[in-house]
Parts: sequence; C-alpha cells; structure tokens
Amino acid sequence: MRTLVDSRFISMNLHVVTIQWRTKASRRSKSPMARKASLSGFPELLPQERMIEQHVSDTLRKVFELHGFASIETRAVETVAQLLRKGEIDKEVYAVSRLQAEDGAQDSGLALHFDLTVPFSRYVVENAGYLAFPFRRYQIQKAWRGERPQEGRQREFLQADFDVVGDGELSSRYDVEIVLVAAAALSALPILEFKLRVNNRKLAEGFYRGLGLADTTGVLRSIDKLEKIGAEAVATLLRDELGATEEQARAALELAQIRTEDLSFVDKVRALGVQDDLLEEGLTELTEVLTAAMKQAPGTVVADLSIARGLDYYTGTVIETVLVGHEALGSICSGGRYDALARKGNRTFPGVGLSIGVSRLVARLLSQEFVTASRSVPTAVYIALNSDHDWSAAQEVAAGLRARGIATEVAVAAEKFGKQIKFADRRGIPFVWFIGEDGSHEVKDIRSGEQVAADPLSWSPPSADLTVQIQRAEQLTRDA
Amino acid sequence: MRTLVDSRFISMNLHVVTIQWRTKASRRSKSPMARKASLSGFPELLPQERMIEQHVSDTLRKVFELHGFASIETRAVETVAQLLRKGEIDKEVYAVSRLQAEDGAQDSGLALHFDLTVPFSRYVVENAGYLAFPFRRYQIQKAWRGERPQEGRQREFLQADFDVVGDGELSSRYDVEIVLVAAAALSALPILEFKLRVNNRKLAEGFYRGLGLADTTGVLRSIDKLEKIGAEAVATLLRDELGATEEQARAALELAQIRTEDLSFVDKVRALGVQDDLLEEGLTELTEVLTAAMKQAPGTVVADLSIARGLDYYTGTVIETVLVGHEALGSICSGGRYDALARKGNRTFPGVGLSIGVSRLVARLLSQEFVTASRSVPTAVYIALNSDHDWSAAQEVAAGLRARGIATEVAVAAEKFGKQIKFADRRGIPFVWFIGEDGSHEVKDIRSGEQVAADPLSWSPPSADLTVQIQRAEQLTRDA
Repeated sequence: MRTLVDSRFISMNLHVVTIQWRTKASRRSKSPMARKASLSGFPELLPQERMIEQHVSDTLRKVFELHGFASIETRAVETVAQLLRKGEIDKEVYAVSRLQAEDGAQDSGLALHFDLTVPFSRYVVENAGYLAFPFRRYQIQKAWRGERPQEGRQREFLQADFDVVGDGELSSRYDVEIVLVAAAALSALPILEFKLRVNNRKLAEGFYRGLGLADTTGVLRSIDKLEKIGAEAVATLLRDELGATEEQARAALELAQIRTEDLSFVDKVRALGVQDDLLEEGLTELTEVLTAAMKQAPGTVVADLSIARGLDYYTGTVIETVLVGHEALGSICSGGRYDALARKGNRTFPGVGLSIGVSRLVARLLSQEFVTASRSVPTAVYIALNSDHDWSAAQEVAAGLRARGIATEVAVAAEKFGKQIKFADRRGIPFVWFIGEDGSHEVKDIRSGEQVAADPLSWSPPSADLTVQIQRAEQLTRDA
Repeated sequence: MRTLVDSRFISMNLHVVTIQWRTKASRRSKSPMARKASLSGFPELLPQERMIEQHVSDTLRKVFELHGFASIETRAVETVAQLLRKGEIDKEVYAVSRLQAEDGAQDSGLALHFDLTVPFSRYVVENAGYLAFPFRRYQIQKAWRGERPQEGRQREFLQADFDVVGDGELSSRYDVEIVLVAAAALSALPILEFKLRVNNRKLAEGFYRGLGLADTTGVLRSIDKLEKIGAEAVATLLRDELGATEEQARAALELAQIRTEDLSFVDKVRALGVQDDLLEEGLTELTEVLTAAMKQAPGTVVADLSIARGLDYYTGTVIETVLVGHEALGSICSGGRYDALARKGNRTFPGVGLSIGVSRLVARLLSQEFVTASRSVPTAVYIALNSDHDWSAAQEVAAGLRARGIATEVAVAAEKFGKQIKFADRRGIPFVWFIGEDGSHEVKDIRSGEQVAADPLSWSPPSADLTVQIQRAEQLTRDA
C-alpha cells in the first residue's frame, strides 16, 4: 500500500487526510450507497459513511470559524406564509401539523424549511437588536423538499451555509471574501478539482439594458436555461418571448459564452461594444473577485458569464460550483449577493453568502467509493480480558488512555484471545491491549502482528492511528 | 478577575474550561433567554448562546467517541405507524405531509420523530446486516413534540443518545459501562453537581412478585408517581387499584425509600424480608453498577429504588439524573436496559442506553447565566487596515494566521483605528493586528492595551485566547 500526503489538506491544520491507492479490501467492500433507503429520498448512512459526512461537516465548520463565522441554528419549521413569500415552490414544501391539534393551536400553518436562507433572513430581522453587523454566520443543518429523489437530490439533505449580512450597507469586499472562503473550504475537503463559476448580475443586467432589452430579469431567466436547452432554443426564447432582435439575442448569447480564468473577460465584454453604468459596476466587482482569487486561490475560480441563478433576488455577484468531471451532479456550492436579504420596516439588510450541498457532495463521494473511513468505530485500542475478573482493572487502564485522548473499548468477557482479536479486527480497531496476570501490559498492532510492552500511563498509538482517517482513492471515476 | 482551573474539566483533554467570578459586565448583559421565541416552543439561540450549546454537544461527542461509540443520524421523519407502536403519545406527534401531495404519494403518513430511540430501533433492524454487534452508537439530533412549552420542555429540542445494542444477547456489563460513560460525559460538562439515580426493574418487579403483587407493571407505574403525588396517594392507588394489602403497599413504599451511595441498599432490601429469584438478579446487577461507579466515578451515582421510569419496555437497569439543586428541572439524562430494543423475525436485539437532554441542560445554563462564552465570534485576531490598498496584503497575513489555526478577520475599509478597534471590541475579539506602511507588523491586546511587534509567521495568541472559552459563573443559583 503506497501512502502519500497531499499538502493541500494539511495546510489548514485540519485532520490530516492521507491518500491511499485503493486496496483490494476496499474494492471488495459492499458499495454502501447501494443500500436502498427504507423511505425514498430519506437516505441514512452507516457508521463508516457517517464518518465521512462528519469529516466534511467538521472541516467546513473549522474553515468557517477560522474566517470568523459564528454558528447559528434555526428551528426546522417556518410558517407556511414565510416560506411561500418567494412563490413557486409550494409543491415542494412539507407541511407540519400536530396529529391531534386543538382548534386555534399556535403551531398550525407550519412547514419544514426547504433551505437555510429564508430562515436566516427571518432570524436576522427578529434578532437584529442582539447582533453586531456586519454579522457573519454559518449554519450546517438539514433541509427538506418534496422533490422526486435522485442522486444528489434527496428529500432530506444537509446544507452548509455561510453568509455575511450588513445593516444598511455591505462592502463588495465581502463578495470577494465569500468566494475566498468557499475556495478554502472546498480545498480542505477530500475532493479533487472543483471550479467556482462566478458572474455578476449587474454586469449581465447592465449589458442587457445597454443592448436595449428592458426585461433584464426575463433575459436572465432565459440565459439560465442555456446548459439545459442550448443556444438555439435560448435565442428563440429571447426573440419570441422577450421581443429581442436577432442581433440582441446574438449579443446576449455571446456574453454568456465568455469564460476566463483571468481578467481577460473584461476585454471580451468590451469587444461586444455595449455601454452601460451598471455594466461597468459589474465589471469592476467581478474584476475584484478574480484578482483576489488568482492571487489567493489560483486555479479554483473562473469568470463564467453564463451563470445566471434562476431566482430573482440576487443583485450582484452570483456563484455556482462544479466538481470537475462530475458536472452532471449539479452545483455543489451556490449563492451570491442580495441587496435585501431581509427588511425590517425601512431598514434593509444586504447579504452575500453561499450554500454548500453537503449531502450531494457526500453522496457522490460514497457512490464512487472515492473516500473511505479507515475503521468503522472511533476506537483505537481494544483491551482484551485474560480473566473475567480483570474487567475492573481494564476499565482503569481504559480511563487512563481516554484521559490522554485515546479512544478505548474494554472486552466484556475473557473469551479466547483469538476471538477477542477478531472482535477488534472486524471493526478495524488497530490495537489490542493485554494485561498479564503479573500486572504487566502489552499492546499488539493486529495489522502487523507486532506485540510490545507498553506503559498505560505513557503509551500512545502513532498519530495516524489515533483517530479515524478519511482515506481517498487515487482518482475520481468521471461521469460516463 | 480571578481565574482558576477545575481539573475535572481538563482531565479528558477537552476544551479547557475556566471558572470565572462573574464580572459586572456579564451581569449587565441582556439575559438571553429572556428573548421571546417568535414561535412558542421553538427557541433559537444567539451566536454566543449557540457556542455554549456547541460546547456541550462537542464535549459529549468527544466523550462518546473516547468510549468507542460511533455517530449515526436517522431521518427526521418516521411513519406514523412506527411512532405510534407504543401508543399513548399520538397527541404529541407532528405529522408531516407535502403541501400539495399527489394521491398515493409514498411520503404520506409521516411524522417527525419524538425521540431517538424509536428511530434507532428501526435503523438497527434495517441495517442489521451491515453492523457489527454489539454495536455502540451515539446520536445527537433534534426531536419534536407538540407539548405545552415550558422551561426544559420545548417543542423542538436537542437530544444526545448513546446506546449499546447486541444481537440476541448483551452482557449486563454494558449496563455498568453505560452508567460510567454517562458519569464521564456529565462530569466533562460545565455543570455543577449531578446525581445518576439508578434502579433495576428486575429488583423492583421481583420484589413485588415476591410480595405477592402480580401486576408488577401496575405497581411500577404507581411508584413512578411518588415524587409527584406523595407516599399517601401512592399507597391509596396500590390498595384501591391493584388490590394490595396495607402491608404490601407499605413494603412497596419502603422499598422505594431506599437510597444509598454505597452497597448498603442490599441489606436494606433484605431487611424487608422478601425472597425472589428475579429480585436477586436485580440486586446483583445493581451491585455491579454501584461497585464500578464508587470506584471510577465516586459521588456521582446513587442506588435509588424509587426510580421506575413510566414506559413499560425497560427490563433491567433504569436511570434518571438530576442536577443537584435543580431537581424541578426534571431528569437531564434518562434511560436503561431493554431486552428487546428491536426485533427482526425471531431475532432480538437487546440494548442499554441513555438520552441526555441537551436543550434542557443548555436552557438552564443560559437562563441562570451560569456559563457565558468569552466572545460572540470565533475570531481571535482582527486585522486593521492602514489604507484601503492594504486589504490584499492583509488577506495574506490572515491566510498565514489561519493556516496555523488562528481564527482571523480582516477589516474591509481603512476607517480610523479607534473605529476599527471598536469593531473588534464589540465582538470580544481580543487582538487587533496592524500592518505598518513599512511592512512591519504589530499586534495589540485590546483588553490590556499592550501593543508589541509580531511576526505573522510565528506569532500566536495565548492558548486561552485561541478559541472561545466557555466560562462558568462561580455558583449555580438554586431553585427557589
């Protein structure tokens, strides 16, 4: 087994992630996602799969906190009125009601949240008097949608959102920072190449306006369908539904074809000959994002002027993210700037933030057997029993090891050593501890068979064995 | 401000928890739980409160993992049929349905889980082929009940469950271990004195049987009301509803009055003169628990023969836990042994485990202002800007600090230093970093005002300032 360490994953002082060439053993293992959920759209993970989800969510949390984001959680339920403010999604919402509710119960008209943005917006309004703005929060929680389940789209899923929200105003530098945080967060995960595709609504809308197309939102919605229905069909939409001329439609499509990893998008836009103040603002903001990203997170961000984001409340930077080679999975990290994330009377709270699809990402990692956990339990040491009477003494050894951060289990019965070792082996526990009749201690690495004398007050496993390692197969199997 | 360190809290290599004499500043702070939830029964925490909840949940997770428990999460929804198997709780269940469900949709007849035991039992049955038994899992998740809200009893609440489940059989040593894990977990939390009150169903049921009372479950249910209605009323219940004689009722009540921190409960039971095999088994098991607890977790466990646990599926050890001085809050950690946690055909899965009421505990910690977070953001260092053009250079310094695990924020505009310092101060960020025009670096501790030269590649804050500290007030205000 060859082992090497990818420095990208240790640069943040996070868990050390070792990359392993997939072994025959891991290839033989039952493909975990092949299990059918007992309720379609509500998958549940096995312990070794859950460790990968935990690793992803711990890593994101660590990166968010290193950037000064504080955790909040909002309640699972919102009022239906709150959820339907944006319209269009009523079919996907799960209503909640007490099985035997009394008349006029306060908790009628409730539903499970379908994302974390709507609840966060309400939270900001309700708690504005207690928060220090600009307020940066992250939120890692489940959300629910009654959609038709498919890989990457479940009815219950885990999201990791991070946003900065201001009171009245919010510098566009936060747009830049949000992109850098996303790049840092995704780089810290056990995934291969990803691309943050960034555009700016001002750039697009200013361009359309400068072209003479008044219904800029309508144009955006059409452009948003580009990947799905193709340029030809979008051009038809623009002409037939939005009254664009052949030339306007062509220009709008040409803008959407611009995609650069450097600042050359600016010249390409200018070459289309459209003049507009909002367009200029958008070009400046997108230039700021690209400039910082090229410096601090090279190779992870691309200016992609096809990105529209269907929902109409974005007002500046918009972002989608693809896993390179897995584009069909859909975006794994999306969001952008909204000048009015929330309103309270005549007070406006602008925000910029992103949402990472943790379940979508983890489902792909698991279905491709792209990462595995080094064992199915946190336990590093299993204390075997020589006699049933040793249990109490073994518990004391265990307490000492645990006090030094070493996860330890104790056997409950003095079965044959072979059977006790098998117990550890089945779970991938690397070390078995023996207490001799004379009170001596030995520890056996059951992988190598090596057994040595050990002092319970000072012995530690190698750091690679101390906690569960999330191991990555050598390469991602690409979409067919 | 006097600071001292309680060794109980650092013995597990967890976050160091410092105990502080409450300062005037913290006394002045708005009492956070005084905020009214916008939806009764669904409280939401402010960031500094959420840090305390996170600390509690991180600490529990750490202790569980040190004892070899693996994390799982189950879906939020169960079928109504699954939830109502035990009967009696239908009024409290929240039903879930799609707002616009099509006929025959698979996701009708669903409801939010009201605890984590029923979902875990289903999970074990569904995944038995993939789990290694005895299987030890922990599960920290929200649950929902449509009860009338009050302190410690909300409609949405966080639970931390840990169980060991066997396939066919499960040694009673796991009962002992579960109690030790609970004692370790609760000892690691920033709470004062707690007592695990342990009884054994075999002991109680055997005793009633030996007394000649056939409906042992009925007796248990009556005894369970002891604290609520008093001995007199329980005696009446036993006589009138269960046909007990005056003497039988008196003996049952005498048994329930036995409460010892050592093994003397055995003699006290024997003194009541009842003979029964099941009683003997119960005495042996409870003796095992007390013996281990006296040794490994002295002062935390009491044999309390009044503990019944109303639900009827427990079959051995039963546990409730009080926060000393806060008995009215109710149990903060309850559970026990069930010989058939789950069944699959003629396969039986016995289990033993406990459920910690995280929300209940955290609500009391907050309402008493018993603990506070040392700051409202994870940020340790705030990088001030000398000029707006320094932002990019400041981002590089920030990236360097973060790579060494130091949570850092960067100012977005070169406002007056006083204003930038105030930004940090409002959030409790301890350090402000300055980059000179000559590229020199200085860092100021804004509490002491001390400012020193600092190398961005090597400077670190004192470890007490590196992460948010959960600080404990000097004493708990007892129930009135």
